[in-house]
Amino acid sequence: MHNLDAIFSPQSVAVVGASASPGKVGHDIFANILKGGYKGTLYPVNPSAKSILSVRAYPSVRDIPDDIDLVILILPPKVALRAVEESIEKGVKGIVIVSAGFREVGGEGLEMENQIVSLCKDANIRVVGPNCLGVINPLPLVSMNASFSARMPSPGKISFISQSGALCTAVLDFAADRNFGFSKFISIGNKADVDELDLLLYLHEDPDTEVIMIYLEELRRGPEFIEHVKVITSGYRRTPVLVIKSGRTAAGAQAAASHTGALAGSEAVYDAIFRQAGIIRVDSIHELFDFASAFAYKEESHLGKLRRKLPRGNRVAIVTNAGGPGIVATDMTVSSGLRLATFQQETIQILASHLPMTANLNNPVDVIGDATQKRYENALEAVIKDEGVDGSLVILTPQSMTNALETAKAIVRVARKSDKPILSCFMGIIDVSAGVEFLQEHGYPVFSFPEDAAKAFGALYRYSDWLGQRHLPQFGFEHDEEQARGIIRDALSAGKTRLGELDGVGLLQCYGFDVLPTQLAKTADEAAGIAGQIGFPVVMKIVSPQILHKTDAGGVIIGIEDEAAARKAFEQIIQGATAYRPDAEIHGTLVQKMAPPGIETILGMNRYPVFGPLIMFGLGGIYVELFQDVVFGLAPVGRSEARRMIRGVKGVKIFKGFRGRPTADTEVLEQAIVRLSGMVRNHPEILELDINPLLVHGEDEGATVADCRIILMASDDSGQ
Amino acid sequence: MHNLDAIFSPQSVAVVGASASPGKVGHDIFANILKGGYKGTLYPVNPSAKSILSVRAYPSVRDIPDDIDLVILILPPKVALRAVEESIEKGVKGIVIVSAGFREVGGEGLEMENQIVSLCKDANIRVVGPNCLGVINPLPLVSMNASFSARMPSPGKISFISQSGALCTAVLDFAADRNFGFSKFISIGNKADVDELDLLLYLHEDPDTEVIMIYLEELRRGPEFIEHVKVITSGYRRTPVLVIKSGRTAAGAQAAASHTGALAGSEAVYDAIFRQAGIIRVDSIHELFDFASAFAYKEESHLGKLRRKLPRGNRVAIVTNAGGPGIVATDMTVSSGLRLATFQQETIQILASHLPMTANLNNPVDVIGDATQKRYENALEAVIKDEGVDGSLVILTPQSMTNALETAKAIVRVARKSDKPILSCFMGIIDVSAGVEFLQEHGYPVFSFPEDAAKAFGALYRYSDWLGQRHLPQFGFEHDEEQARGIIRDALSAGKTRLGELDGVGLLQCYGFDVLPTQLAKTADEAAGIAGQIGFPVVMKIVSPQILHKTDAGGVIIGIEDEAAARKAFEQIIQGATAYRPDAEIHGTLVQKMAPPGIETILGMNRYPVFGPLIMFGLGGIYVELFQDVVFGLAPVGRSEARRMIRGVKGVKIFKGFRGRPTADTEVLEQAIVRLSGMVRNHPEILELDINPLLVHGEDEGATVADCRIILMASDDSGQ
Repeated sequence: MHNLDAIFSPQSVAVVGASASPGKVGHDIFANILKGGYKGTLYPVNPSAKSILSVRAYPSVRDIPDDIDLVILILPPKVALRAVEESIEKGVKGIVIVSAGFREVGGEGLEMENQIVSLCKDANIRVVGPNCLGVINPLPLVSMNASFSARMPSPGKISFISQSGALCTAVLDFAADRNFGFSKFISIGNKADVDELDLLLYLHEDPDTEVIMIYLEELRRGPEFIEHVKVITSGYRRTPVLVIKSGRTAAGAQAAASHTGALAGSEAVYDAIFRQAGIIRVDSIHELFDFASAFAYKEESHLGKLRRKLPRGNRVAIVTNAGGPGIVATDMTVSSGLRLATFQQETIQILASHLPMTANLNNPVDVIGDATQKRYENALEAVIKDEGVDGSLVILTPQSMTNALETAKAIVRVARKSDKPILSCFMGIIDVSAGVEFLQEHGYPVFSFPEDAAKAFGALYRYSDWLGQRHLPQFGFEHDEEQARGIIRDALSAGKTRLGELDGVGLLQCYGFDVLPTQLAKTADEAAGIAGQIGFPVVMKIVSPQILHKTDAGGVIIGIEDEAAARKAFEQIIQGATAYRPDAEIHGTLVQKMAPPGIETILGMNRYPVFGPLIMFGLGGIYVELFQDVVFGLAPVGRSEARRMIRGVKGVKIFKGFRGRPTADTEVLEQAIVRLSGMVRNHPEILELDINPLLVHGEDEGATVADCRIILMASDDSGQ
Repeated sequence: MHNLDAIFSPQSVAVVGASASPGKVGHDIFANILKGGYKGTLYPVNPSAKSILSVRAYPSVRDIPDDIDLVILILPPKVALRAVEESIEKGVKGIVIVSAGFREVGGEGLEMENQIVSLCKDANIRVVGPNCLGVINPLPLVSMNASFSARMPSPGKISFISQSGALCTAVLDFAADRNFGFSKFISIGNKADVDELDLLLYLHEDPDTEVIMIYLEELRRGPEFIEHVKVITSGYRRTPVLVIKSGRTAAGAQAAASHTGALAGSEAVYDAIFRQAGIIRVDSIHELFDFASAFAYKEESHLGKLRRKLPRGNRVAIVTNAGGPGIVATDMTVSSGLRLATFQQETIQILASHLPMTANLNNPVDVIGDATQKRYENALEAVIKDEGVDGSLVILTPQSMTNALETAKAIVRVARKSDKPILSCFMGIIDVSAGVEFLQEHGYPVFSFPEDAAKAFGALYRYSDWLGQRHLPQFGFEHDEEQARGIIRDALSAGKTRLGELDGVGLLQCYGFDVLPTQLAKTADEAAGIAGQIGFPVVMKIVSPQILHKTDAGGVIIGIEDEAAARKAFEQIIQGATAYRPDAEIHGTLVQKMAPPGIETILGMNRYPVFGPLIMFGLGGIYVELFQDVVFGLAPVGRSEARRMIRGVKGVKIFKGFRGRPTADTEVLEQAIVRLSGMVRNHPEILELDINPLLVHGEDEGATVADCRIILMASDDSGQ
């Protein structure tokens, strides 16, 4: 028995803290289980009542003469601990703590919660809550409403996990209004033990769950979450996961001296996590329901296997009996990343043979206001068979000849013969209700407005695209970890938390980055000698721990073309620096090769307490400051993810030989991202890092680090 | 009597083409008027029926013994013309043509439509349609459902204009489900005569209309539309106009040789028109209804005047009995351009005295799950009185102690005492229905989900912001129109439709643009002389009608520092050009002053057949190519609109002394936009224009035209 089965499908339930007073949570939950038709045996536990709602009560869970699978606990924190101990003695298999007053109030409550979790962990008992609405399993074999919502949802194929109890009741109401059925419905409250990842893993194995919806305020696991959920969404069983995430609970980046730090808000972390895990993020509850109904749509194949209908591509055929909604659908199709299919000549001929003269035979197909179900059926059948069509949106508006129910049946007939998704939009709530109900009862997604149907189709396509992604072979890098460790150790033992440019460049070199030849010159002659050796033109920069803004101090001279100029530049920089800050300790100047031309990109990292290193890539220089055209990925970032990140940059066409420029070396960018991911994972002391700009050259010409900024933290508080 | 009153509030209606056969449009419309309780007198016209639905019928409208205000025409195009002639003879005041088969089918239908419109125009009769659903006035004094929708909406304060008949029926169904009432409901079909602007002007004067919603596929008037609708939305009566626009019916820009042409799709034109007219564009029917209910919300002031409640600023106070939805609202508040209000100390003290210890006294205020109506009332009253609060969102989720109806009453009590808007979100459709109905009946906006309420609040704020905009005094420019006309005339008579750089620069100079001193040199000595006179450094460029891509021909040399270099450059350019294209007719080279440094912007114009010149402004150079960070405005663009355009650029902070750069001269940008608007209106021969880059310098240092491209069309087909 899976360790969460006791929570969702218990044979017996004890309600500890059951009460005889209506309005009290301990009464309502007990009543909801009892009246919800629970198929197992239910026991109220109350030290002073003889019976609750006519059911014999027991003073303690230990007094129940039978085995108990699940305890629902509704007791104040002070007495809850005792009840948990008794439950453990009794040998229960799961506990749902509904009561509040634990971690969320801090102090004693938090301590109590920790103690309960620790006891249950030792006893191998999983705990849901505390501070939650409860758990519902509406499926007929269990039919358990262990929640304080009086409304038992219909059974269905969608499971819902909610971090907010209040949202649960609203979602149940909304679902009732939409004939929306659930498989499991769970409020996770404080997540003291069971969290969303545990539930995702459980529900992924649940044969009754086809789609998982989550309302989330924060995650407590990052890389581990991605690793597992990636398998859930794209592995063998392929369960779509839809998330509505809210809450600006700062994920708490540790510093913000870098661009990466400043740009990577907690939303960036979550967007990265969801993208890397293959989770579909939705913006509103409306969308959550709309998308869920599209994803839940499965059809029996001719071998009798249920298969989710996903589009193979983004080419949509629209069939409508009204122009206006067809245009709305077309617009939204395009803005949802889809495109209108172009029909083959044969399809157009078939359409012509079935449709009136005035009908539009091209996409969107207008079957005209007086279309009967037969005309819809013929048109839909023709377009769905077209090889250039990946799925269809059928729009029906109530007009005088419209028969919504018969048209719904016609749609189902065509859908059963095709493996392409067909989404319907029956406009109007009352006049078309017979058709809408027919489609809903048979599990076909149906929407009230064409924009909703088109958006849901877009989500199906994005998911299909995620499933079809190529997994690129990893790069085989060899890094000089030992030397890198030395550079970091030396800096830290010298008390430095900001690496100087020379050290920064050295560290990046250990991980295979191409850097500009750079050396420190202590005299004018040394500067001239180094410059001659490096090769002209060179750049020279002041090196002084007291001077951070080198340009302000006249401490940077570029375009130095010969040895005489190098000597002169050295003197000028030292003089300027001394004048700028007479007390500055001056180490000399860096002599650095002038960077070859290239596209300015930025590559950075910022570290989060729970999630670990977050890698940022985007257009650098002024672009990053003005447009924040950057993409994030939580480490580890492999080659496929690196490529997705590069493609995710809005100005990506700058790399593609845009306006006569050479095509950029994007493979070296993929390498750079993967190298950085490896580096920051190997060295938890690197707190923050910006390579800005990383200059990307033409194909096969690589990329050069032109400047970098690296911030360290003492290894003993690295937080890893 | 206003010329559309006969359409919306006729004393008598004749249905010409009324039929006794159910299912026929002529029957259904007649039946709908009859059964809808029309307060005037209704006459069926049918040449062969004695009576229709027991009402005495007349063979022709001329046979009716009484005066007729409105004719509803349901006849095929061939016989419609005769019926129109008879109606004119009869002296009717308005005609609604429901039948289809006119302009939309072309040919004879189009001709028939034109003839009807022309006859009616001469007779001073307004025509709605053809090819429409009809007209509905649900207000009790009229109660006319002259449409083929069997559903008569409830009376209300919102008028709806739809370009799609099919969408009308869906909207009526949706409205019925939401208890949404209408003042006027009209399907405009082909817009042969009456169009959306006529109706906007009429409804703006209508005392029963508070908000206008439009479903639009295309506009046929541009600058005129803006000019009038601006007054409707922001003038004395201030009627909010909400538009859902769809349809990629290309607005038809005339060429696309310029950036402006390539970037300005028809959506850009519409976005500009809506912004300039103060119209609020919505994305979906859900949003249309949500926003309309928020905008319809008016309250009696203590002087007994009804006033719309608009927020003075964007600071929102959230009061909720559940954490999760409060967070959702907070998130959406921020992404809707609002911010969470910070409470004064006094407010927090009042909250503390009314709320339990565990309540959150800061924004969002959590009154805790067990909040009664009294606690809601106290908290809401405290925050709405705070000077730092511009309005409130109240969120209620059904929990055990929740009384939705009493809380609704409490909200209304507080709202009546305040002039700040309060939007409610009652989550759950069934359990909270008593409260929702109470609010709806009393005209208070109530939503199902916090994100919807927050978005609607954001729309109220944007509208309030539009109303409160400053109107800047116009610039007083004097332009040398005469010389500009000469340059254009000369180019056109020489058969040129693309102005050379020298002429382009000359044209811009006539309108006060700062250009770089530029002269044509025909020999190397001339080049050296001109360069010396202009002042070094200079740029030199080949001038040849056959060489468009000057750089490819080695035809551009920059950074010429002295006379010898100028001579050398001349020879080199001529040689290169001759080698590149031996047959090229070479006029010499331009000698141009090197541009001073500045921020690269782009300023352009493209001309549309109906809408006229569309001005584009944005970041130039590579920015425009990569990020398309540009904003559009339909001419004429005055100073206030120019400022709004500049502020609308995403990367606007580049002008604000960003990262140590000097603050840019944005006043000169405003001037440049206004100058360009004047120029393209004065010279309809200018078809397309790009100034790219227009280099903007530091404050009071102006802006320089560094390059321009101007395309002309022969003045006799200017389309203006």
